[in-house]
Amino acid sequence: MKIAVLPGDGIGTEIVAEAVKVLKVLDLKFELETAPVGGAAYEASGHPLPEATLKLAQAADAVLFGAVGDWKYDKLERALRPEQAILGLRKHLGLFANFRPAICYEQLTHASSLKPELVAGLDILIIRELTGDIYFGQPRGRRTAADGHFPGSEEAFDTMRYSRPEIERIAHVAFQAARKRNKRVTSVDKANVLETFQFWKDVVTEVHAQYPDVELDHMYVDNAAMQLVKAPKRFDVVVTGNMFGDILSDEAAMLTGSIGMLPSASLDKNNKGLYEPSHGSAPDIAGKGVANPLATILSAAMMLKFSLSQPEAAARIEAAVGAVLSQGLRTADIWSEGTQKVGTREMGDAVVAAI
Amino acid sequence: MKIAVLPGDGIGTEIVAEAVKVLKVLDLKFELETAPVGGAAYEASGHPLPEATLKLAQAADAVLFGAVGDWKYDKLERALRPEQAILGLRKHLGLFANFRPAICYEQLTHASSLKPELVAGLDILIIRELTGDIYFGQPRGRRTAADGHFPGSEEAFDTMRYSRPEIERIAHVAFQAARKRNKRVTSVDKANVLETFQFWKDVVTEVHAQYPDVELDHMYVDNAAMQLVKAPKRFDVVVTGNMFGDILSDEAAMLTGSIGMLPSASLDKNNKGLYEPSHGSAPDIAGKGVANPLATILSAAMMLKFSLSQPEAAARIEAAVGAVLSQGLRTADIWSEGTQKVGTREMGDAVVAAI
Ligand SMILES: CC(C)[C@H](C(=O)O)[C@@H](O)C(=O)O
Ligand SMILES: CC(C)[C@H](C(=O)O)[C@@H](O)C(=O)O
Repeated sequence: MKIAVLPGDGIGTEIVAEAVKVLKVLDLKFELETAPVGGAAYEASGHPLPEATLKLAQAADAVLFGAVGDWKYDKLERALRPEQAILGLRKHLGLFANFRPAICYEQLTHASSLKPELVAGLDILIIRELTGDIYFGQPRGRRTAADGHFPGSEEAFDTMRYSRPEIERIAHVAFQAARKRNKRVTSVDKANVLETFQFWKDVVTEVHAQYPDVELDHMYVDNAAMQLVKAPKRFDVVVTGNMFGDILSDEAAMLTGSIGMLPSASLDKNNKGLYEPSHGSAPDIAGKGVANPLATILSAAMMLKFSLSQPEAAARIEAAVGAVLSQGLRTADIWSEGTQKVGTREMGDAVVAAI
Repeated sequence: MKIAVLPGDGIGTEIVAEAVKVLKVLDLKFELETAPVGGAAYEASGHPLPEATLKLAQAADAVLFGAVGDWKYDKLERALRPEQAILGLRKHLGLFANFRPAICYEQLTHASSLKPELVAGLDILIIRELTGDIYFGQPRGRRTAADGHFPGSEEAFDTMRYSRPEIERIAHVAFQAARKRNKRVTSVDKANVLETFQFWKDVVTEVHAQYPDVELDHMYVDNAAMQLVKAPKRFDVVVTGNMFGDILSDEAAMLTGSIGMLPSASLDKNNKGLYEPSHGSAPDIAGKGVANPLATILSAAMMLKFSLSQPEAAARIEAAVGAVLSQGLRTADIWSEGTQKVGTREMGDAVVAAI
């Protein structure tokens, strides 16, 4: 088995190094191969997703990804910016199902912006469609407006779209995931305004007929953004499109207070996947050795479970992470009075020791 | 001066009645004319925005709106659903600038999901563009996919678009509003993915050159959804498009804990406007006399200030609302131990008495 390791930019290198350390101590048979991606790849070879990196990712059984992006690339034309690497990987690898758990770790309840009683024990799973919607829809660009409020003026435009099979496959993923949890799916749409999401709602409802044991409800995206703040525990699995999922999964992650702890998986139809922390590249703290490696370490655990058929090894990592939290070790982002502040390396070492 | 009064559905009738009571006691010279809208209009005449209602709204100097919508209309074809009334009014009246204040009332700090220190004193203004974006962009509909992941399959699509003058005029509104506040504007976009919002960012930046005394920063919508939860007080004025504004303004309103208190204004280029509470029609509590009329009463105050050049009358209403809160009167949605629970009518009467 081969794992492509793409550390990327900012804190990416530091946190991925710790996850690799953890993977190595498990003594499983796999090969790790590292390649540059994002701004780092642009610096090295003029493109955020070099051919060689893409080939490696395609050939591998799974991809462990750090983070990409830095303000210093803001002035580059869009096609060369670091974010294009992650969009390109999703597209070329067909990673249409994004799993974004939003879990509030018991030891970190106090770190949430929300009152503890609203988030204690929170465990929701946001499933975001990742290769369709307005992210990839054509046509898009700039032109002279032919109609609208100001015909003749310059305008920019994008196309939102979903086809029936795209909605069907993500709906199946959501219902199947719910079966392993509390058997409730909330499909988030904007059917009252958008043709795309009226269709989304219709198709999800049709697919639901095959899952009579799972409860389905529909919620408008604006209401979902409110309910996440008001009563996040009312959700179990949330399934939605690429654009709404981008917004809601970040909102939900931040609510938990545990964002430095949250892994994510982006899967193709054969459960090959790309695994990355839910947080970003944090260029402001890069190189300082203070970033929290736990989201990346837990992403490696997800990888073992979802793509590499090693559920026991995954469980060992998860237990070790639980143990270091219980020992009171905390990186700066999750530190509070009475716990012990540690750096990126020490945290990784502690997980290794706990394994 | 003429005010069109459109109570609508659900709790709309009850809360608008209280706002009308308050307006009448001010003894100003204006005429009030009521017309049906939303589900109520559909029942009466087969259309959610009857010609007569639209004509009245067009002829009036301002519109006082309650709320529209009820689950029972979910099965109607989209063009006949209650929400089409509000979309139609925005479009036909050219109400492109939506003001959504998110204020945490001192007396209600405890009602927020967020920890009190994060919301105490919160006062942000979300300015949402309201007649462009993917809400009204053509073409839209269903068709057979010509390309994409599943060519030949059924798909639905919508068009996101913004023209330069549309972005310019809302940017001017935001910068001018910021001048009367803390002189900071955050423009929310998704320039890293969408052509429309790269253009948005570019044009907002250009318009900013005319407002050197106002600070401008740019934030991606996913990050904005997180920062609202993490540190809402970092914002002053937030300006964004129709779709992102729909989501973020509801998220922000819910964060305050004061959603039953929050008014909104939707203005055209001459400051003619439609005024409505930020909350919805709440069919579950309609007719029970328990809804909070204060958001609607405060919307009437906004109307006096923005569209009817009666700032003193507006201030009298706002002071009266402050007074009833200080007296400890609360409708069920904002009630807490130690305060006095009152119904919709009693709350309206108390405001009238305080004036
Ligand atoms: C970097 C950006 C293109 C990306 C997205 O919008 O999908 C990011 O926000 C994410 O959620 O992974
Ligand atoms: C009812 C609906 C069409 C509307 C919108 O999406 O604009 C509502 O959510 C709002 O924010 O006023």
